[in-house]
Amino acid sequence: MNQSQYPSILLQKAVTEISRLPGIGSKTALRLALHMLRQDVMEVDALADSIKELRHNVGYCKVCHNISDTEVCEICANAARDKATICVVENIRDVMAIEGTLQYKGVYHVLGGIISPMDGIGPSDLQIDSLVDRVKQGGVDEVILALSPTMEGDTTNFFIYRRLQDTGVKITVIARGVAQNDELQYTDEVTLGRALAGRVPFSM
Amino acid sequence: MNQSQYPSILLQKAVTEISRLPGIGSKTALRLALHMLRQDVMEVDALADSIKELRHNVGYCKVCHNISDTEVCEICANAARDKATICVVENIRDVMAIEGTLQYKGVYHVLGGIISPMDGIGPSDLQIDSLVDRVKQGGVDEVILALSPTMEGDTTNFFIYRRLQDTGVKITVIARGVAQNDELQYTDEVTLGRALAGRVPFSM
Repeated sequence: MNQSQYPSILLQKAVTEISRLPGIGSKTALRLALHMLRQDVMEVDALADSIKELRHNVGYCKVCHNISDTEVCEICANAARDKATICVVENIRDVMAIEGTLQYKGVYHVLGGIISPMDGIGPSDLQIDSLVDRVKQGGVDEVILALSPTMEGDTTNFFIYRRLQDTGVKITVIARGVAQNDELQYTDEVTLGRALAGRVPFSM
Repeated sequence: MNQSQYPSILLQKAVTEISRLPGIGSKTALRLALHMLRQDVMEVDALADSIKELRHNVGYCKVCHNISDTEVCEICANAARDKATICVVENIRDVMAIEGTLQYKGVYHVLGGIISPMDGIGPSDLQIDSLVDRVKQGGVDEVILALSPTMEGDTTNFFIYRRLQDTGVKITVIARGVAQNDELQYTDEVTLGRALAGRVPFSM
């Protein structure tokens, strides 16, 4: 649809901004914008404010780098969690997926991505140094590598293994019950729970 | 996914607000929220501000009730458009669809919906009185009914016909080249253009 056909600059601006979101084209963006026009001002403000607040005020746990409203996240601050076991994941959706299995009682380390030369993401862009520091500070028995079983995940696993092998910490990787090339966050909880339970020592 | 699993109240709030939008579930809302967290603050602010501005400041043409940034919309203000022909449509997406055919040189009247007892939308919720006023003020030769060919559209056509039949204005309806129960806005431009060209006098 020709942009000059939008009857309002404000509408065109909103549609342009909304269609920048991933997976939302201009037709869907227009549908959403017109929906918002029919909603109460208060509801639309609540949406816009929640987005702004999220981006401006959200914090990250200084220990595990999970999203958190407090300096240390609920999981790291929970005395019942086993601090000697660190599960390394790519992002917070993976934390939520593993928490959903109700099988894991350790803590996490959120890398913020995986090594992906194609996307220009190298080891220095990820929370790998802070993971090594955490392990070197002591009190950690096991590091579980729980990245998606893709080439990028394998590369990242290998890189972390190389960085940690001299510390003497036990390094495990979740069992490959998870199908190759599947995204971790979309794996069903039974498969994911089994993969966690069946973890084996890291080897090349 | 259990809501208590969200690691941040701000994240949970944003996901809740985003998932109120039509066609967006909680998984998509989470994906969008996490995407925003990775964007520049300026980009996220631009999105939120464009939504607020749209809702707060958008206006409607006082003649045809199309969305407009000015008191009278560009189409109604355009001296080249034929003011004696009024095309009655449900919403502004239909205006955009008809403008896309490049075949219509008249003006519009946007009802803001169609009569739908199931959704609690009656004639008084729509811009029907203002259409009748417009016709009674004179200078109008023809009213083209261009509502979607559904039961609700037919009901609305009939209602408008009854309100206008005493004014002596010519009342036409777009040809049913448009397939029954199709949504007007998704009709291809050729079909829509032909349906406009092949309009016939309204009869019951």
